[in-house]
Amino acid sequence: MTKLYCFGESGNAYKAALTLTLAEVDWTPVHVDFFNGGSRTPEFRAINPMGEVPVLLDGDQTITQSGAIQTYVTEKTGKLMPASSEDKREVLRWLLWDNHKLSGQAGMTRFLMNFLPPEKRPQEVIGFMQGRLKATYGVLNDHLEGRNWIVGDQITIADTACCGYLFYEEPFGFDRTEWSNIDAWLDRIAATPGWKHPYDLMQRAFGA
Amino acid sequence: MTKLYCFGESGNAYKAALTLTLAEVDWTPVHVDFFNGGSRTPEFRAINPMGEVPVLLDGDQTITQSGAIQTYVTEKTGKLMPASSEDKREVLRWLLWDNHKLSGQAGMTRFLMNFLPPEKRPQEVIGFMQGRLKATYGVLNDHLEGRNWIVGDQITIADTACCGYLFYEEPFGFDRTEWSNIDAWLDRIAATPGWKHPYDLMQRAFGA
Repeated sequence: MTKLYCFGESGNAYKAALTLTLAEVDWTPVHVDFFNGGSRTPEFRAINPMGEVPVLLDGDQTITQSGAIQTYVTEKTGKLMPASSEDKREVLRWLLWDNHKLSGQAGMTRFLMNFLPPEKRPQEVIGFMQGRLKATYGVLNDHLEGRNWIVGDQITIADTACCGYLFYEEPFGFDRTEWSNIDAWLDRIAATPGWKHPYDLMQRAFGA
Repeated sequence: MTKLYCFGESGNAYKAALTLTLAEVDWTPVHVDFFNGGSRTPEFRAINPMGEVPVLLDGDQTITQSGAIQTYVTEKTGKLMPASSEDKREVLRWLLWDNHKLSGQAGMTRFLMNFLPPEKRPQEVIGFMQGRLKATYGVLNDHLEGRNWIVGDQITIADTACCGYLFYEEPFGFDRTEWSNIDAWLDRIAATPGWKHPYDLMQRAFGA
């Protein structure tokens, strides 16, 4: 039984959910009521002391951090990972870059702009982060020039990592029409057999 | 010939430099004049289109992202990495966490507080990031309760990653005496044969 503790608004959870889905693992989402303290309960902290979503439970394995879950899924299924050690290292490089520069910053900015009460949104922080994110989108857009996928000639977990926050409609300063290579790449990901939008893979915490 | 493009103030470069040093690789630092545009020159962008330090040149290999360099060094030397696949995944999990939560945020905050002209320092951003970092230090400090090292019973690249910014003296809101487990762990790292402070491994951009 493979369970993923997640909620729809979490792009980090989406990276894991999309990876499981495209690798054709049979998995079940377990909704974490994040915005009402669901990740801070003693029960959840016993599963993940870092207090973060996603968490993968697979048999007797408990794995946290989206990139570690993604890597585990590729090792278990042999899918979404290139064969050569150089390409594997290139995938790792983009996973790390995504955590540091893309999803790390986009996820926080989207949270501040959409899931905090309007009067609590720190406008200086939001503006600062949006500036940093523009440079980040530029790096990805440049890399995708002349490429279909981030590493090699097929979809890998580098792609399912970097797209983690980019299918969401809530505004956070990212407009895919401004970045033509990213735009076409997101279309390619969405055209991959089995692809689903985050809100079709995981229950939302807010509205529906 | 193994070269690391780096500068002393970069904790991300320090992670790579310290890993090379503790793994007893014979390496040479190449100073990048980061604060005067040294990472934005066409020559440097040809080496790393991401425009970031560190970059490792090892024979015909060019590797960027500190975590990818660290992983490469462990594969090449067999050092600073545990043996079991579960422990390896645990190391990866902490590398990703460090990139996302610890060095990613600490590096930026230290930059804003120390390397921007005083009148340009965004105080709201600095305060916000310091709040997030306190939660991050708490996670690491709790994890180190009853442990000598982050994973297993010896120093690994999980340790040389997470300590990346924590030996610097410039203020960024981190006071190691407030976090007793982190404090003792930093002492253990500094007592490891061959250990050096970042400014003793790499040339500084500012002062000396």
